Amino acid sequence: MSAHEALIAELREVDNLAAAARLLNWDQETGMPEGGESARAEVVSTLAKLVHERSVAPKLSDLAAAAREEASTPDRKRQVELVERDLERARKVPGELVERLARATSLSQQVWARARKERDFAAFLPRLEEVVELKKEEGRLLAPEGGSVYDGLLSDYERGMRESDWSTLFDELERELPALAREIHERQAPVRERLAGISALRGPFGREAQLKLCRALAEALGYDFSRGRLDLSAHPFSETIHAGDSRITTRVDESDLRGSVYSTLHETGHALYEQGLPEELSGTPLGAYCSMSVHESQSRLWENLVGRSDEFWDARWDRVRDAFPDLAAAGPRAWAEHSRRVEPSLIRTESDEVTYNLHVLVRFRLERALFAGDISPADLPGAWDEAYRKALGIAPSHVGEGVMQDVHWSAGLFGYFPTYTLGNLLSAQLLDAATAAGVDDRGPQLLSWLRAKVHRRGRFLETPDLVVEATGAPPSARAFLAHLRRRYLG
Amino acid sequence: MSAHEALIAELREVDNLAAAARLLNWDQETGMPEGGESARAEVVSTLAKLVHERSVAPKLSDLAAAAREEASTPDRKRQVELVERDLERARKVPGELVERLARATSLSQQVWARARKERDFAAFLPRLEEVVELKKEEGRLLAPEGGSVYDGLLSDYERGMRESDWSTLFDELERELPALAREIHERQAPVRERLAGISALRGPFGREAQLKLCRALAEALGYDFSRGRLDLSAHPFSETIHAGDSRITTRVDESDLRGSVYSTLHETGHALYEQGLPEELSGTPLGAYCSMSVHESQSRLWENLVGRSDEFWDARWDRVRDAFPDLAAAGPRAWAEHSRRVEPSLIRTESDEVTYNLHVLVRFRLERALFAGDISPADLPGAWDEAYRKALGIAPSHVGEGVMQDVHWSAGLFGYFPTYTLGNLLSAQLLDAATAAGVDDRGPQLLSWLRAKVHRRGRFLETPDLVVEATGAPPSARAFLAHLRRRYLG
Repeated sequence: MSAHEALIAELREVDNLAAAARLLNWDQETGMPEGGESARAEVVSTLAKLVHERSVAPKLSDLAAAAREEASTPDRKRQVELVERDLERARKVPGELVERLARATSLSQQVWARARKERDFAAFLPRLEEVVELKKEEGRLLAPEGGSVYDGLLSDYERGMRESDWSTLFDELERELPALAREIHERQAPVRERLAGISALRGPFGREAQLKLCRALAEALGYDFSRGRLDLSAHPFSETIHAGDSRITTRVDESDLRGSVYSTLHETGHALYEQGLPEELSGTPLGAYCSMSVHESQSRLWENLVGRSDEFWDARWDRVRDAFPDLAAAGPRAWAEHSRRVEPSLIRTESDEVTYNLHVLVRFRLERALFAGDISPADLPGAWDEAYRKALGIAPSHVGEGVMQDVHWSAGLFGYFPTYTLGNLLSAQLLDAATAAGVDDRGPQLLSWLRAKVHRRGRFLETPDLVVEATGAPPSARAFLAHLRRRYLG
Repeated sequence: MSAHEALIAELREVDNLAAAARLLNWDQETGMPEGGESARAEVVSTLAKLVHERSVAPKLSDLAAAAREEASTPDRKRQVELVERDLERARKVPGELVERLARATSLSQQVWARARKERDFAAFLPRLEEVVELKKEEGRLLAPEGGSVYDGLLSDYERGMRESDWSTLFDELERELPALAREIHERQAPVRERLAGISALRGPFGREAQLKLCRALAEALGYDFSRGRLDLSAHPFSETIHAGDSRITTRVDESDLRGSVYSTLHETGHALYEQGLPEELSGTPLGAYCSMSVHESQSRLWENLVGRSDEFWDARWDRVRDAFPDLAAAGPRAWAEHSRRVEPSLIRTESDEVTYNLHVLVRFRLERALFAGDISPADLPGAWDEAYRKALGIAPSHVGEGVMQDVHWSAGLFGYFPTYTLGNLLSAQLLDAATAAGVDDRGPQLLSWLRAKVHRRGRFLETPDLVVEATGAPPSARAFLAHLRRRYLG
């Protein structure tokens, strides 16, 4: 066995443990009986500890060092570089903290799910406080030189971007989006009036028929159900257990079909990326996705740029006809217009593509304040409502549609939200490049272009390099803002 | 931390890894996409290897030795004794064999599931041959002094019982059961004629309504759904992932409601045992079930002794009325008689309680011949058909209803089948003892007696001692044969 092969074998074995942890997580979110919660947290914690131990073990660094000596191709060099980068990251965080974080976030997610239903922030607060304390510890350990605690957490999701970089980006969007949203909202007044008269848009939409339609739509986009499955969960997500098994979930609201449909298109976008990663490199860093931002660009591209267009629904209206004859009678244009309603709203995952990044902006600024110590977890509900009033002009009537709406904080995913915004920007930039390259459908040709330019590139490149390679220009907000103006004001 | 506490902590950590492996298995049987098969086999194999490594590690034996020195109560002594016994067992089988077995059986189960549907023994044979070769290796390593390869495998499931002991037992049953079955079959001629006129017994029974009824029945027996769940799988099973999470599965045949109902009662019996084990000892040998035989006694008690009685259905007929009004009109007595039909049949899990042990007898004798080298895996289909002709007077028309009907061999579970028969005998012996102790329902009182006499006893005692403690007599076939005569000829 060459040094390279020995390294790959070790990486794959560690990833096998991580795969078990991913299945435990998927199961916890889709159907674990609640009586299993505390024992499950222990199981998750043991796995996390073992994965961490193996990820920082001298064995792995020795194997990486030997493989570095031997590496003759750029790909193999890159593989070793990524392993050593991960080693360095893992070495910074002691196993004991990893384990405490795994246990705390497993419990905290379970408490969040219940407390959110009961709109009970107080029940969730002690768990959240524990998670924030642990993440502060982690952020301090991960902080780049001269960087803040929050920089440490941010860099875990998008390498090289600090809170000041993100801040510049969000400030720029804040200058454009609120005015744009207001203008579009005004222009859409007659549309809203017309749609208000179409009761078929408001359901009820049977649960089984929704799931059937969601399955059909995922399949239509190219999602391979022999290598995945669709389930229900409180908060839709996608999770790759291991090669050949990339799952998605959705949620069903009987009075609003957009919830399940757009969650499904979104998670399908993520899963298409996972199903298109270079399988021969699965279980190794080089075979993984490029970054969270690029991941999000894939989900938003299918959900919004493709999935809210007239063309998309014209071509797939027969599937809606099978599931919901009443809605079908209203026609694809009414439905597509319904899917493009722009108005200030409370729930990020249900918000329109114009105001969406204002939701993210709120979270970014709250996280920044939290980790700077300017506010504490107990202040979050109040600070949240105030920030929504400022950014969107509305405030939630309870924490379930406010500060407790997202699973992220309960799962310790601080620093993650900003990548959603970068992903949105990239989705438009990528679609423009595909169009410029002659891709003229929003289906198989487009998927095939993305497979070549993004999916099969795994983690060969960093985000900015991948974007330059695929689009000819560095990441920017230009294409995204142009898309909004074209679609809504054009 | 005392030596005892340190030992328990280590045991629990190893069991956390085993819990992940159990979830991987549950998932594989209930809904894993088939594209994940080969990667899944690698994940399962890594977990099995780790569990094995930790189970034979010097750390564990050192902890056990220290705890042995310290142990002051009989319970703690027993805990250490069980740990050391497991250590000894694990030491006999090298990690490399454990890993090969895990990988081979994971793949082989997947191939079996497909090949069984296609009635294609040839497709399954290479996988089965691999498993048998590995189990021969394992049996040789586990064989008790002077014992055979098959003794080694048998002792893994019921300690102290050798193939000659089992052979004596099966010979005894063979002397009684065929004649008994024939006599009952003749007596039931008028019942069969009457039931043939009731078309509602033959369905069709809708899938969702069956699942709803099965859930209601499991709940009625005392199964706690907040600590479990019911799913579909090709071959029904029960699996405890960890404390507070004991799952069951069933399967649905639209033309025969008995399939889902009796699978559910059976698996519920297993899960009631698991849900009743001493939770404070979970994840340790002392907190586990006594033996496979005792486990099976619990499933068969609820499935057959309780679940095929008139009283059971009289008390629960309102649940059938909700799900299947046509069947309900036929009345509980007709259904109960339908559930007690005795006739030679091909599928073990659907067979009546009189002929059931003849199905097990066939498997026991074939396994014995296989591991003695008298036959090879390729001979199994022919040998199977011949053995069925001899024991039951009928033979399958294809391998799907013959040699490929059970998952066990594909999973490497050789030596397991005989415990089903011992479990059947014990179920009757336990119910007689409960009745003699004044238990006069077949519901909450009976469950409560079993909780005290069997479930909460965990693995404090060996099978014969547990049976003596609970019933006042060692295991025997007497109560079982008396039950059959009473129910069917009395």
